[in-house]
Amino acid sequence: MATAARDLGEGEHHSAIRVEVPSTTANLGPGFDVFGMAIGAFWDAVELEECPKRSLELELSGKYGKSIPRKHDANSACLAVKHFLKKFGIERGIRIRLEKNIPVGKGLGSSGASAAGAIVGLDRLLGLGLPKDELVALAAFGESCSAGAPHADNVAPAILGGFVLIQSYDPVRAIGIDPPPNLELAIAIPDIEISTKEARAILPAQVPLGEVARNIGRASSIILGLLRGDVSLIGSGMVDAIVEPVRAKLIPGYDVVKRRALEAGACGVAISGSGPTMVAVVDNRVAKASDVAKAMAEGFSDAGLDCESLAARPCGGAKVVWMR
Amino acid sequence: MATAARDLGEGEHHSAIRVEVPSTTANLGPGFDVFGMAIGAFWDAVELEECPKRSLELELSGKYGKSIPRKHDANSACLAVKHFLKKFGIERGIRIRLEKNIPVGKGLGSSGASAAGAIVGLDRLLGLGLPKDELVALAAFGESCSAGAPHADNVAPAILGGFVLIQSYDPVRAIGIDPPPNLELAIAIPDIEISTKEARAILPAQVPLGEVARNIGRASSIILGLLRGDVSLIGSGMVDAIVEPVRAKLIPGYDVVKRRALEAGACGVAISGSGPTMVAVVDNRVAKASDVAKAMAEGFSDAGLDCESLAARPCGGAKVVWMR
Repeated sequence: MATAARDLGEGEHHSAIRVEVPSTTANLGPGFDVFGMAIGAFWDAVELEECPKRSLELELSGKYGKSIPRKHDANSACLAVKHFLKKFGIERGIRIRLEKNIPVGKGLGSSGASAAGAIVGLDRLLGLGLPKDELVALAAFGESCSAGAPHADNVAPAILGGFVLIQSYDPVRAIGIDPPPNLELAIAIPDIEISTKEARAILPAQVPLGEVARNIGRASSIILGLLRGDVSLIGSGMVDAIVEPVRAKLIPGYDVVKRRALEAGACGVAISGSGPTMVAVVDNRVAKASDVAKAMAEGFSDAGLDCESLAARPCGGAKVVWMR
Repeated sequence: MATAARDLGEGEHHSAIRVEVPSTTANLGPGFDVFGMAIGAFWDAVELEECPKRSLELELSGKYGKSIPRKHDANSACLAVKHFLKKFGIERGIRIRLEKNIPVGKGLGSSGASAAGAIVGLDRLLGLGLPKDELVALAAFGESCSAGAPHADNVAPAILGGFVLIQSYDPVRAIGIDPPPNLELAIAIPDIEISTKEARAILPAQVPLGEVARNIGRASSIILGLLRGDVSLIGSGMVDAIVEPVRAKLIPGYDVVKRRALEAGACGVAISGSGPTMVAVVDNRVAKASDVAKAMAEGFSDAGLDCESLAARPCGGAKVVWMR
């Protein structure tokens, strides 16, 4: 609190800001709660404006504006902003205009984007310039409403961009890794919704030790592949025997979609976050991400599900579009 | 079998070979069963010689020659050689001369070195030139006698040198990573012995899911630190809340040694393999590995244990010294 009071106003002060923030994919198989990547597929916009009343106001718009909770304690942007203001003892009224373009309940970091955009915006609006790990921790708190507990694997890439490793949660330490330029993504978003809270509730509380070792080996391959620009190695690490088999049961066509993606040249396939979206990594020197996306859509179609599919690239994180 | 029969004799044929093979450290905290590193501290020598009788003979020498099992099924070199010959349907008599200089029962990959040296030697002796992953898998089988199951985290670095990630066990896939030149090691070997089999028997069968995520984050940091030459990041990842707390109870002074190493400038400390040796990583631009080793020895001394301590560097893997 002392720090904020000291810093507050040191930077240039503004009364309104607009931040755009990308969709993200979390886990990539074995990296449950610790791996995330920003995907240049969908962007939310978060506008914050100081208002005279010391209250929090929320306006929703965008394609999915009607699909998300209006109640402040159930909205990740509101929750994050309230937590931020309370933590630093700042008494301000804030109006949040949230333009929701990232599909909701699909495992594409929609709630994380809201929280990340709100935190990045508020930090800049107040001229605080908090360290990135603190921004990530504040935004992660906003995720409590959708995930049941703070988690950072969507908000961190939404803020930092690229691939992010959450090295530790206590304190939060997020390390960014630039994905190699030959890495592309294919995404298939079937026409069902999965609640993050429910997808977490069905997870096993305990895991056999042997599976842990296997997941450590695979997760390490993903990091190594990212650093070496070896998409095939990244893909070979995208296998998870702990969380994914349980969640796969919630996704009709999971096996078919995975097989079709690999047949179409993907290096690896995983459930995006808590699903139902599935994400494949593609080496663009070997196959076309658009072909892989098409094959995945056909897989969902075989399982009787409508599906939106697209090719995308990793992208940068939240960016301020304007301040005034 | 067909492959071996075809290849056998294609290379130049020899009747005797001497291979030197280094000590190794496994796990480095969270990398249970999947991380290992060759340490230039101790070297075994394995000599293989074809003999007319179709039998396996074993001669032991070296500082620790009397500390290891003579029974073939309890000796990792014999077990590996028998498995190798049987697998490829090769009927030869082999005399193994094993010069055991790597301390036994200390968690420094002593049994792994025997198996690794024997496999590398036999492959060369027979002119097979098997792929490295196959050599690792064959040597890992030799570890069954000491570990109760094949494991590759010592034999892989003993063969390949440097740091090795076991990406998968089925099939075995080992990926080498060159440690950065500023990475040094401090090792403290207390005067107690821990059997690998026993150290494995006390491990939990099940692990809480939250701990798995934390270990994935830390293990990933080790890989990232190795690739970026960031020893501090490697060290910060050397924390394990699954295997190490259980094994720490077998090592008097564990907490003190760890604290003393960090106070002396180590970036991270872990039990080496199944212990009781403890290994610290040191950034040689920040601290002296010899100072850290001394501090660790004092820690064991405070706990009433005699201790051999030394500074070392990562090193290359098994090398053929001569063939004739």
